[in-house]
Formats: sequence, structure tokens, C-alpha cells
Amino acid sequence: MAISGEDIGIIILDLAVIFTMAKVAGLLCEWATAAMKNKIVIPGVIGEILVGVILGNTLLYGALNLDSESTAQFFEVFAQLGIIFLLFAVGLETPYSELSKVGRKAFMVALLGVIIPFFAGYLLFIGLNYDSSEAMFVGAALVATSVGITARVIKDLHLMNSVEARIIIGAAVIDDVMGLIVLSIVIAMSEGDSTNYADTVLTIMVAILFVVMMLLLGSYISKTKKKGKPFPLVGKVNHHLTQKKMRRSSKDGRSVCSPNTPEGRARTHTGLYLALILCLFLSAISTFLGLAAIVGAFLAGMLFAEFQDRWFCKEKIESINEFIVPFFFVFVGIKVDIDSFSAVIGIALILTIVAVATKFVGCGAGALSLGKSSATIVGSGMFPRGEVAMIVATIGLAAGIVEDSVFGMVVFMAIATTLISPPVLTYFFNKKYGKIRENNLKANEE
Amino acid sequence: MAISGEDIGIIILDLAVIFTMAKVAGLLCEWATAAMKNKIVIPGVIGEILVGVILGNTLLYGALNLDSESTAQFFEVFAQLGIIFLLFAVGLETPYSELSKVGRKAFMVALLGVIIPFFAGYLLFIGLNYDSSEAMFVGAALVATSVGITARVIKDLHLMNSVEARIIIGAAVIDDVMGLIVLSIVIAMSEGDSTNYADTVLTIMVAILFVVMMLLLGSYISKTKKKGKPFPLVGKVNHHLTQKKMRRSSKDGRSVCSPNTPEGRARTHTGLYLALILCLFLSAISTFLGLAAIVGAFLAGMLFAEFQDRWFCKEKIESINEFIVPFFFVFVGIKVDIDSFSAVIGIALILTIVAVATKFVGCGAGALSLGKSSATIVGSGMFPRGEVAMIVATIGLAAGIVEDSVFGMVVFMAIATTLISPPVLTYFFNKKYGKIRENNLKANEE
Repeated sequence: MAISGEDIGIIILDLAVIFTMAKVAGLLCEWATAAMKNKIVIPGVIGEILVGVILGNTLLYGALNLDSESTAQFFEVFAQLGIIFLLFAVGLETPYSELSKVGRKAFMVALLGVIIPFFAGYLLFIGLNYDSSEAMFVGAALVATSVGITARVIKDLHLMNSVEARIIIGAAVIDDVMGLIVLSIVIAMSEGDSTNYADTVLTIMVAILFVVMMLLLGSYISKTKKKGKPFPLVGKVNHHLTQKKMRRSSKDGRSVCSPNTPEGRARTHTGLYLALILCLFLSAISTFLGLAAIVGAFLAGMLFAEFQDRWFCKEKIESINEFIVPFFFVFVGIKVDIDSFSAVIGIALILTIVAVATKFVGCGAGALSLGKSSATIVGSGMFPRGEVAMIVATIGLAAGIVEDSVFGMVVFMAIATTLISPPVLTYFFNKKYGKIRENNLKANEE
Repeated sequence: MAISGEDIGIIILDLAVIFTMAKVAGLLCEWATAAMKNKIVIPGVIGEILVGVILGNTLLYGALNLDSESTAQFFEVFAQLGIIFLLFAVGLETPYSELSKVGRKAFMVALLGVIIPFFAGYLLFIGLNYDSSEAMFVGAALVATSVGITARVIKDLHLMNSVEARIIIGAAVIDDVMGLIVLSIVIAMSEGDSTNYADTVLTIMVAILFVVMMLLLGSYISKTKKKGKPFPLVGKVNHHLTQKKMRRSSKDGRSVCSPNTPEGRARTHTGLYLALILCLFLSAISTFLGLAAIVGAFLAGMLFAEFQDRWFCKEKIESINEFIVPFFFVFVGIKVDIDSFSAVIGIALILTIVAVATKFVGCGAGALSLGKSSATIVGSGMFPRGEVAMIVATIGLAAGIVEDSVFGMVVFMAIATTLISPPVLTYFFNKKYGKIRENNLKANEE
């Protein structure tokens, strides 16, 4: 309980300053895009990350007290909440019935996008004379896609219902599981302790079981719905929590709680409550199983998507996201320590090129059956490694296997891939969808 | 940056568990009220505080890791954000033009509600043989109303536009300033250091200046609006941020960004951005000036209320509040340490009775010109002392003037007054508004 009133005041000020800067940066990106007559689109998220880079590398860092532990800890959790809610919103637009259509392709994209980067990273560091364990960790850091930024770009383009978007999101969930498998194996092998294998296998099995169970649940809900039978209990819960209350307060005794009318949406909060509860629980479980929290958040959104007709929550979740999500991307930027990269810049650049090229080729190959233009979109959407790579490198660092300098290279790669993806992805999306996108934008807004 | 992934996972789990418990408790309160045929209304906020008491005094406290510093710090800031946004929403329903109508009465309520409790508390402790400085601190702790819980109860009853509600909120803002004045004088007198007086006076003057300036700004905006001239710059900002963009994306070139249509409201986020920025900045400034953050938040809401026709943000802020606000009230409950009160329960109870009686009489007398039924509402709405009293006691404790046992009594009084207020306030509101309230509820929902 050791946080003073003054510290809280400073955190509130930080929230104000960072939010203002993020929104101004977003506006500048929009104006720049308009100035270039939409030929080059600069997504607002790039502005937010750059705000973070400025905050993290200038005197503002100390002035805003971002170096104090209590402030840093608060924002770390707050930013995490932002990315969790973003992925939940993405899940809401990706119901199981749609996801299952691209399941096979997403699996291929994920598989090739795991195998090729892993071996490329491993062989690069073997060739650079690092030892085998360290090279394996670098390979493992190249595996898992950090889908947050891609999801944000796609959402901003209003193209979440495109087949490429669904493949990217699906593949990112699958490759997070594969990434956990690779990491577990790498840890077990580098420790060389045979007694650990049982634990490792158990961890992997439980994580796979969790994701598969959620997908089966999604499949079950979507099937019962198609048959016209709603999911058991839902009807009862709905009746007690929503309809009954609404009928009580409406003048003529009829239910007015229809998600088809704006009044109905604004009136009931049941959907929001259930959505938040499901999202937070699955995110937490996912963390405890060794997966990224966003995997659970996405699965929660996917499950909840089937109930949109009863429990509408999209607009309300979007309102929360408008406030919280920018903090995640600003804090991605704040972690960029420009000074520390100068020493390792050479190999770090090569590693980044390998990271980008291998995902582009691997994931692109997995999606090639959809045509070249789709393959380029999927490939470039899978670039970002982000925080997942940093977690892998941190584990290797803590185990004494990964050196400080290699850790720096991985961090550079993680951030660089995150920064490269949005403009490239937007370029390929625009190339294919150009005109359609604008119509889509209108349709989505109506 | 020393928070582990596991710690974040636990905080996410805590968010899930606490939110679920708060919502279930709210539902139980609603059912209990319905079971008693609305004769006794148990506000949902009582359920939330009781959830906190359970969490804070059982094994759940340790099990949910609420005793760890990083978890506690996160929730302290998060809960603070909740009460800030709640008071902003209250401000949104209290435009200056309405507040000014009750200004004189609110001032009288605040003044009598400051003088009577201060001297009653002071004399009680002098009578109990405590020394003068300590008695003054107890008096100062009885001064400022913590309006959060009252605001919540009124909002839940949908009676924010009643004259009593406006007087209570207005008086609470004024008595927070008076509370700061009393506290500053008490500190200066107990230190007996004449060189401090200049600083004390400066602190007081700056705080008064801040509140008065915001009120004048509110008055200016509301006057220019009445004359049909909008506030300078607003038109331009509105044009650039909202209308222009909207026109660009609408098919026929007409602006569709009207807050009068649900589409318009959902479509533009400019209102939400500006609202959040104003709210966070004024809250932070208010903290730095020694006032409660919620004073700034309320003033921000009051100012923004005048722009509702251009920048609609109410529904979006409500969505954020649905998520964050419960955490404030649950954490009020978590701070209740049942064990530690047993030793001081006798005097603590007397202090609580004095605290309740003096505000009821003092504030009630200030509002007596509105009639007896209104006076009882205003009086009972001003009971809660909450965190403001605890801050006063903490300062006295840190200065070595207030003993541990007296500190415990003040904390007991602060919590007890917070718990007593909602049922009493709801009772008096129902007595006066009974039928009107139900119609109001419907009107508000439409």
C-alpha cells in the first residue's frame, strides 16, 4: 500500500500527457496520409509507437516519473489490459464459424512460419560461432508472432472480415502454441536434464488441450445455433438478467432489450459484464498455462461473438479500448532504448532481415493457394515478434544461456519487426483492396 | 520494470474475480430490493463494498495476492481512476447553468457542514482529555465530505437532475476546498511556526483560485452559449476533427456527425478523446494543488457538459465506468480491517455518531429553505467522509500529533459514515420521490 497520493497524481498526469500525445500523433498520421492522397497510408499506431520512443529517450522520461518503479509497474499492467481488450475485440469480429473456414490454411501458415524462422535463426547463430544452446534460443525467439499490432492495423483499415485477416489471426493463435512447444523443448534440451521431459510434455499438452477445448466449445455453440437451438442456459440467463428487468421498466410490459435497436444496446449492460468476465478469466488462465494472455483474450472474443445477437457489447468494448489500447503501443515505443542498440546494430540488422524474410516466405508459402496478393498480405502480417520474443530472450538470459549482447539483438529484432509490419501490411492490403476498403469503411460505419 | 509475467497474470485474475463478485453482489442487492417490493432499497454499491470487506478479511486476501505490493499499488491507482471517471460523469449531468442556480444554497450547506462538525469533533476530544492539537486534527477529519459514494447512489437512482443532488454535489466541491483550508490552518497552528503561514495562505489561495477560475470558465461558456455564440475555437476544432472527416466518409457529402442520431454518436470518438484529456488533466492539477482528484474531475465534467451537443461522450464514458468504477468501492471495503477496530470501538462509535449527527444537522439546516424533506436528503447525502478523513488522519499521524488509537477511530468513522449514508439517503430520496423516481428511470433510459 506504499503508493503516495502524490505518486497517484503523477500517474494521472502521465495518463493525461501520454493519451494527449498519442491522439495528436494519430491525427498527424491521418493528415500526412491525406496529404499524400492516400497513396501511402501511415497507420495511427506508428504515431503512437513513435510517441513512446520520444518519451523513452528524452528528458520527458524522467520528468514524467516513468523511471519510478511504481509508475512503471502500473503502466505495464495497464498496457497489458489494453492489448487484452484489443484482442478480445478482434475475437468478437472472428466467430468460430468464420475461423473454421480458414482453419487448414491458418495451420499451414503457422507451421511453415514456425519451422523456417526457427532453423534460419539457429543456423545464422551457429554460423556466427555461437554455441548450440544460445542459437536455439535465438531460433525460438523468431517463432511466435505478436499479433497485437497486426490486429490493430487491420481493425483501423476495417478489414477484419477479409479472409487474409482471419488467416493471420488464426495462424497467430496457432503459432503461439507452437512457440510455447518450441520454447519448452529448447529449455529442456539446453538444461539436458531428462527428468524435466515429463513436465515439459505436460505443459505442452495442457496448453494444446486448452486451445482445442475452446475451439471445440466454439464449434459446439456455432452448430447448436445453426440448428436453431440456442446454447443451453443462455436463454435462462438472458431472461433473468436482461429481459425480465427490461420488461419491468418498460411502460407497456414488452421487452425493449433488443440489440437491434440503439436504445436496447445502450440500455443493457449484461453483455458488457459477461464479456469482460469471460475475457479476463480466459486471459488469466492462458497466462498461467504459459501462453500469451492475448491468446485467451482472442478465444474469449471468438466464443462471445456467437452471442452478439443476445448480448451486444461491441460498442461498449470499443469505448473502453479507445481509452486503454493506445497505452500498449506507446509503451512498446518506450521500451526502445536507442543508445543500447548501437553496439550490436550489425548483427541485429541481419537478424531482423532474417526474421522478416523467413516469415514472409514461410507464411506466404502457406497462403499461396489463395493467390500471390493474399500471400503477400499474410506474410507481412506475420512479421511482428514483439513481446513474445522478448520473453523468450529474457528466459534465456535468466538461465545464463543467452548473453547480454544477444539479448540486445533479439530486443532490437522484436521492435524492428513490429515497426516494419504496419506500413508493409497496409501497402499490400491497399494494393489488393484499395477501392473495396473505402466502401467497406462506409459499410462498417453504418 | 520489476513486475513479472506471472504477477501480471495474477492481477488479471484478480480483475476477473473482483469484477465477477461485484456484479453478483449487485445482482443480489437488486433481488433483495425486489423481494422487499421496493420498500427498502439496497443500493448495489453496498454489495460492492461488502465484497471488499469479505476479500479483505478472509483467506481470499492472500490467495488473490492482494497483500503483494505490486498488486496493491496497481489497484490503488486503478480504483482512483474509477472514482475520477465517476465524478466526471456526475459533472456531465451538472452543467454550470444548473449548478449556479443552487450556488448560494450549496455554499450555506457546505459552510454549516464544515463549522459544526469541526467544533463538535474538537470539543469531543477536548472533553475526552486529548490535547488541543490532536483534537483539532480530529475536527479537521470531520470536515470534508467524500462525495463519491453519494454520487454513485444518486446516479443509480437516476436522480442526478434533482435539486437536492445538485446541492449535495456543489456543496461537496465547496467543502473540499474549505476542508483544505481548515487542514492547512490546523497544520500551521500545531506546528506553531510563523514562517509557515505565508506558504499556508498561498496553498489556500491557489486552490480557491483554481476552483473559482473553473467556475468562471463554466459561467462564460454557458453565457456565450445562451447568446447563440459558441465558445471561440470550439467551432474550428469541431470542424477539423469531426465534421470534415465525417463528410469525407459519408456518401453524399453531408455531415452525419450529429450527436442526435445514435449512428453519429457511435461514429465519432472526438468527444471521448477531449473528455478524457480534460478530465485527466484537471484531476491531476487538482491533486497537485492539495485538493482531491475528484474535485478536478467533477469540474472537468461540469465544463464539458456544455459541449454535449457537439461532442457527445456520455454513453462512452458510461461504458468505461461500468468496468472501472466497481473497483473503487470494492477497495473501500478491502481497507476495512475488522480486527483492528475492536480495541477502539467505544469512542469510535461515539465519533461516528457525532460525524453523522453534525453533518445531518449542519447541512440540513443549510438546505432547510427547500423544505424538510429536501433538507433530510441533503443532510444524509453529506455523511460520508471516506478517504479525505483518512488523508487528514495520516498527515496527523506522520507529524506525530495523532496517536495510533485515534488514527484507528478516524478510519472507523470514515468507513462507517460511508456505509451508513447509502441506505439512509435512498430512504429519504424514496420518501420524497417514490413514484417520480420510477418515471424518471424510464425517461432516463429512453
